[in-house]
Order: sequence, then C-alpha cells, then structure tokens
Amino acid sequence: MADKKVKFIASKSENLTAWYTDVCTKAELMSYAKAKGFIVYRPDGYALWEGIQHYFDERIKALGVRNVYLPTLIPMSLFQKEKDMINGFAPEVAVVTQGGGKQLNEPLVVRPTSEILFSDYFKEIVHSYNDLPIKVNQWCSVVRWEKTTRPFLRGAEFLWQEGHCLFETENEANEFALTILREYNNVGRNLLAIPFVMGEKPSSERFAGAEHTYTIEGLMPDGQALQSGTSHFLGEGFMKAYDVKFLNKENKITYPQYCSWGISTRLLGALIMVHGDDEGLVLPPRIAPTQAVIIPIRADHSPEVVKASKELEEELKKAGVRVLLDLSNKTPGWKFSQYEMKGVPLRLELGPKDLEQKQVTLSKRYNGEKITLPLDQVAGKVPALLEEIQEAMYQKALTFLNSHIVECHDYEEAKKVITSGMGFAKMMVKSTNEAAIEAKFKQELNATPRVMPFDQRPFQSKDTVTGEEGADKVVYFARAY
Amino acid sequence: MADKKVKFIASKSENLTAWYTDVCTKAELMSYAKAKGFIVYRPDGYALWEGIQHYFDERIKALGVRNVYLPTLIPMSLFQKEKDMINGFAPEVAVVTQGGGKQLNEPLVVRPTSEILFSDYFKEIVHSYNDLPIKVNQWCSVVRWEKTTRPFLRGAEFLWQEGHCLFETENEANEFALTILREYNNVGRNLLAIPFVMGEKPSSERFAGAEHTYTIEGLMPDGQALQSGTSHFLGEGFMKAYDVKFLNKENKITYPQYCSWGISTRLLGALIMVHGDDEGLVLPPRIAPTQAVIIPIRADHSPEVVKASKELEEELKKAGVRVLLDLSNKTPGWKFSQYEMKGVPLRLELGPKDLEQKQVTLSKRYNGEKITLPLDQVAGKVPALLEEIQEAMYQKALTFLNSHIVECHDYEEAKKVITSGMGFAKMMVKSTNEAAIEAKFKQELNATPRVMPFDQRPFQSKDTVTGEEGADKVVYFARAY
Repeated sequence: MADKKVKFIASKSENLTAWYTDVCTKAELMSYAKAKGFIVYRPDGYALWEGIQHYFDERIKALGVRNVYLPTLIPMSLFQKEKDMINGFAPEVAVVTQGGGKQLNEPLVVRPTSEILFSDYFKEIVHSYNDLPIKVNQWCSVVRWEKTTRPFLRGAEFLWQEGHCLFETENEANEFALTILREYNNVGRNLLAIPFVMGEKPSSERFAGAEHTYTIEGLMPDGQALQSGTSHFLGEGFMKAYDVKFLNKENKITYPQYCSWGISTRLLGALIMVHGDDEGLVLPPRIAPTQAVIIPIRADHSPEVVKASKELEEELKKAGVRVLLDLSNKTPGWKFSQYEMKGVPLRLELGPKDLEQKQVTLSKRYNGEKITLPLDQVAGKVPALLEEIQEAMYQKALTFLNSHIVECHDYEEAKKVITSGMGFAKMMVKSTNEAAIEAKFKQELNATPRVMPFDQRPFQSKDTVTGEEGADKVVYFARAY
Repeated sequence: MADKKVKFIASKSENLTAWYTDVCTKAELMSYAKAKGFIVYRPDGYALWEGIQHYFDERIKALGVRNVYLPTLIPMSLFQKEKDMINGFAPEVAVVTQGGGKQLNEPLVVRPTSEILFSDYFKEIVHSYNDLPIKVNQWCSVVRWEKTTRPFLRGAEFLWQEGHCLFETENEANEFALTILREYNNVGRNLLAIPFVMGEKPSSERFAGAEHTYTIEGLMPDGQALQSGTSHFLGEGFMKAYDVKFLNKENKITYPQYCSWGISTRLLGALIMVHGDDEGLVLPPRIAPTQAVIIPIRADHSPEVVKASKELEEELKKAGVRVLLDLSNKTPGWKFSQYEMKGVPLRLELGPKDLEQKQVTLSKRYNGEKITLPLDQVAGKVPALLEEIQEAMYQKALTFLNSHIVECHDYEEAKKVITSGMGFAKMMVKSTNEAAIEAKFKQELNATPRVMPFDQRPFQSKDTVTGEEGADKVVYFARAY
C-alpha cells in the first residue's frame, strides 16, 4: 500500500496531451467532478491559484483597485440588452429556469463574465465626474458551456479575477487597460517564470464589445499558443446599452470610458506545460507551496538524522523558506518520486553519512543538478539558491519562446512553422489582405492570428502571404488552445 | 452637488429595520442588484468580508486546513442521493436546465451547500487510514431561494466559507467541529467585537443530516437572535449515502466521520446591528478598512495645516495604522458626517489653531468622546487607543448580551421576554416536554429554541413551562432573524 502512490506518467515529448492529464491528476492538482467539464481544484492545485491571487491582489490594490462581489446570476432581459454580449456569449451560457421549486418568470443566466452586471451597478453609482475613476475587481468563478474541456485550460467553470474600471476619458481607460496588461506580464515574469508575448488582438479576435483587446500570449511546448490573460478597452458601448452617464467638468452629460480585464486558472495550465517534465510537475520557487523538502535517509535507524533534519527544517523556516520535512515511513525512493511529481523545486537529502561529513545534498528539480553544501551553510544559502532557480527557469522558458517565434517570408514557411509545431509564425500583413489571410489560415491550417506584438518593427515590406508591397503590421499566427 | 452625500437615516431605536437598510446603503456597503434577493457587495462592504477572510483563513491554515474549490453546479441525481439534504434544501434550490443553447439531459442544482460534492470528491481520494484526516475548506458563494431577503442577513446568494473534514473516529470529528466553533467565537471576540453564546442546537434546529449542530448565537438590539456560524458533526450519514469508505488500521472497511462548518457574510449584518448608531455604521478598529481619518480644518487657507496633516498621515502609516487623509474640497462638516456614516473608529482634526498649540483633537466614533493629544505624541498613542476602543466596544456589547439573557421561571415570564424584545428567554426544559414546548413557542410566540449553551448549569429543577420537576437542560428561546 505504501508504494501505491508511485505513479508513472506519459512522456511529455511523445504525447503532450496524455502527459498533461497525467500531471494534473497524479500531482494531485485536480480531480474530475461528476458534472461534465467541471473539476475539483485540489489543495495542491488551489494553492497555486492562491499564490497568484496573493501576488496580483496586492499589485492591483497598489493601483487603487478595490474588490467587490456581484451576483452569480444575471436576469435574461438584462443580459440581452447588449448585442455584442449576446452574440459573443449566448451560445455558451448556462441558464437557471427554476428556483424555490417553481418555474421562474424570468430565466437567469449564470455569469460567463460580468460586464453587464457591472454596467448595471455603475448606473446606480456614477453621476458626476467626482465619482470617477472607479476601479473595482472581483475574484469569482464563471461558467461557460464549452464543448471540449481540459483541466485548467478550458472548463465549464473556471476561477478568475475580473477587473472593471470607468474613467472620464478614452485615454485614461485605454492606458489603464495597458497598465494591467503589464501587470499580467509581471505575473509571468515575477511569479510563474513564464515569458509572454504582449500585444493587441486583431479585430477578429477581440472580446465581444471591445474596441481594443490586449493580450499576453504564451507558447506551449507543442508550438501552440495559449491566450493567458486579456485586458480590454471597451469604450462606451456598454455604457450606452445600460445607460450609464455622468456630468463632466464642463457640465455636459457624457458616457464614461470602460475597461475590463481578467486572468484565470488557465495560468495553471501554462505553468504545468511550460515547466513540467517526464517526472511530473516542476514549480518555480516563488509560486511553489513547498519550496524545499527535506528527506532524511535511514531516519528509522538514526535519531541523530531525525534531530538534525528537524533543526534544518527550523532554520529554513526562519530563513523564510516554505519547507517540508517528510518523516513518514515511506522509502526515500518513494519520497523522491513523490516530490518530483509534485514539482518541489529543491530536495535536501540528509543521511548518517552526510551527518558525519556535516553536509547536505541538494537536488534542483528543474534540471536535476545536485550540489553539496556544508550543513551549517544550508539555511543561509537556500533563499538565494531558490531565486537563482526562479531566474534560470524563466530564462530557459524565454529562450524557448524566442527560438519559436519564426519570421516567415512566404506562405509555405508559415505553413511549415504552424503544421510542424515550430511555434509562432511571425508574419508581415497588409491590412487590406487581413481578412482573406485570416480565413485562409483558419481553413487550411486551423491557425489564427494570436497577437500583434507591441514590438511592431517590420522585418520586410512585403506581405508574407501575398508578396504584395505595403505590409503594415506584424502579426503572430499559431494554432491555439 | 458637493453636499449631496450628507444623508440622514432612520433612528435605530425607533425603527431598526429602516435604520438597518439605511446604513447598508448609505454607508455604501451594498446596493441592490436587478435579480430579486441578490445584492452587490460594494468596496466598503466587501472589505469587511476580506477582513474576516484574512483573519479566519490564517487561523484554519494553522489548524492544518487547506483550501480547495469544488463546482458551483451539482447534478440532480447526485443531489438526490442523500434524503436529509433533499428534505432540507430542495425547496430552496435554483436549478440550471439549459446549457450551451440546449435543454440539459440532467438538470444541475446551483450549490446551496456542498456536502454532496465533497462527499463525492472524498470517495475518489479516501481509501486508507493513511488518507485521513482530510481537512479542506472553500471560500465561495452559495445560492438559496429565500422568500424574504435582507442585505447580508438573508439573501438569494451569499458569500461564505465551508469547511469539510473527515476523520477516522467520531471523537476526532466531533472535537474538530468544536475546535472550529471556538474559532468562530474568536472571530467575534478578536475581530468583530461581538460576543456570542456558544452551544448546541436542539435536534429540531439541526442542519439537514447532522448528528450535532453547534452554533454561535448573537443577540441583536431588538432582542432577536442571529445564528452567526454553525459547525456540524455529521457522523457517517453522508459517507454511507455516497459510499465513502476506508480501510482502517485493523484492516476493516469503515466509514469516515465527517464534520462541516461555515460562517458567512451574515456576520456583516451582525456587525452593523450590534455596533451601529443613529449616525450610521460604527466599526471596531481591527476590522475597519480605515481606522483613522485625518480631517484638516481650513486647509485651503493654510499650507502649514496641509503639510502637518501629510506628516501625521505618514507617521500613522509607519505606526501600522490604516489611515486616510481627506484633502478634498468638501466642508469639514460634510466630512464629519461622511466618516461617521462609514463608521471610521477615530477622527483626527487638525486646524491652524491646533497647529499653533501643537495639538490634535481626536474623536472616538463609538462613544463620541473627544480627547486632545500633543501632535508629536499622536502616532505613538493611536495604536493603543485603537486597541482600547476595540476592547471597550466588545465589553459594551458583552454587557448588552449578558443583560438580555433572562432566567425565566414560568411561561409568562418567557412570553414577556420574547414579546417585549428583552432577548433570550433562558429556560429549564425537561426533555420529555421538549417537542411540545417548542411547538407552543413556535405557534404562540413565533419563537424557537436557539441554543443549548455549553454552560448547562441549571438555575432551577422545575421545567420553566410545565413546572414539572426533572428539567434536565438549559435552552435559550428567542425570535430569530
């Protein structure tokens, strides 16, 4: 029974899909719920989301954003007032038709996103320029009836934050949408060790009702893109539909300018795929619930080893390290596998021999490297070592991303990049051809324009697909999750 | 326009119901959403919930509880497996019957509580005594189709935490339910300055499916009780219904012992009612998002006052005080009313005269007391002053509670206590009469047995209602929210 938990998983390079599912379940991040497409976020999975919440909530509060909570359910009539929202979300909503044992007079939509409810709320509280800006956010779940689902990446219900802000001017609202996008990028840079491409979505990929949709786009090991967070400048469309107005400084009745933004538990999917390996999950230290695990060797025969392990645990705790000492009666081999599967960044082994030599063997999860440190230096050095690991993991992921953004000079090159999983096909596009090119990529390659990166430096003047002169934008195409 | 926000509210003593609604809306804690019974938790209201979350989440993590997230929706067939749950909750559930534009094959219940989903999850992960104990919790919202609703006190949707734990033995599960109850009591004692009566619910008031329901029962100014948190020992009923078993140390297949527990945004209702007054909300310092507000007097004519106010703000921040400096161009009178309405515990006034005399006038929100302090001592003394206020508010509330628990020697006394809003009718009950007495109180007085306090010392041997000898329990009866 003790060894039951030693599990084997699919190979990441051979079968990414099977590997991904194996890691999700065997690293105990989630399990499947009875209702199709719904999952249980288990403690080790939810702790990752809590890490993101903790980091990001502090960041937005420093920007003056305050948290609120709006209802889960939206009256159908309210939902139907904004046409883009209906077109964008109606096909994937869940609808409550019974309540308290009776058929409801008006059905209620389970929120797929909350622009409508926020607009209705803003109508109550916005009257004068004195009431602006309003910067609010909620942490909640949303429900979207997806046909195919995968843990964290696409589900019938997922956890997210949705920020909703109103400003007096277009410029302020648009700038705040961009400020938040940079904060999203920082979640990758500073917490998850994941580099993203920052940019804007082409119009075909915009959020329902948005004038600009900004995105952080990640790249997964199979060369497919993962949209990992979006920030929208919504202008005044929702304000008009829901009749939100204010008296501006010139005493004129005006519509506020709206931006909304969200990241979700989808980031856990990115985290798993970007860093994981054939032994399981690999967590960057800053997000890891357990940063270091101490595994005593032959502890059952050596009270000294137990004592030294406990002392080491205490010292590491004092040094601010999230450390776990595993004194269970499982074998060291079982423990090695277990914590590798769970992605603990650093393993510390301490046996009778080590104790004799007053040393500890440390193994880095992300590259398997082993180092030996004098016992009395461990607690002092581990914090910096964890930071080194964090940075090395980011650099490794950045190298992967950069080497998988491929400049394409003609359609055949782009086709090869996309179909062989080489990553983003970086293309020059002439705006007048945009729709036709998008249709062609969709139909022939099942690929979409993921992002117009903020770095718009052209690499040629010709349109990649048609060869025409006058290409005026850089666009990354890829298949996507 | 500037003075628009000076609002007047109903008198607390004359019309508690109107006063309560006024405070909820005018202190900007919530606003009404379009769907009946649903509310928006506005920033100043949600911040109170965040304060509770922050405090309690740390406490339960110290007890080894980890957070998870389970789905919002429960398949109807799963919901119907446990008969107590159906009987208890079926009349008040909301049901999703459509998803993705289609009629669903199986309706989904929006969670009213999650014992069912947790049981189904536990079935997947519990196999051996090695898997126990399991201590998990989720922060989420639940939906219950209530007929009459009031902000925070009773709503179609409310925010809560629900903890769900499994143990090997009855004793462990029951003890943990009690441990959590004491933690709930501490939320009142240490954070909200609200005293509760701790005890057990009589069988008629137990949670659907529970063997013991423990409660913290608050007393509101009108003498009505407010059930403010419950912790249930559920035994193995759910385990049997959902087939959750484990192999115990004796190698026998056994049912785990279950406890569940929850507190909700209802605590905000208690906070408002227990401490508020005719000027609005009154917040205990530990839960107050803003603990002290600095209001400069004649700031527009005195750059020195502005400068000194900013310095004071900085010093208070350094001293760990959540301070706000209001430099807006509203009148001091408007500001006084505004922050009184919002319940800020301490107001600091600083004008040219004060500056001349190097002093600050401080006003305590909870009792209106004013004191003067030398300017250079303010930052040093405010933290202790806030703690004094916290304790004084608790003691005031405790005195109120204790003086409203009235020993009743016969039915007429109890009737008077209940109908005249004097609080808890403390009664001696003989178990064989219990059902009849409960029925009588329900029918004649619209009152229920709220709690059998842990302090079961009898004050007489006769049954309060029947006068029979052999009364064997102390029960508090009251009307309740």
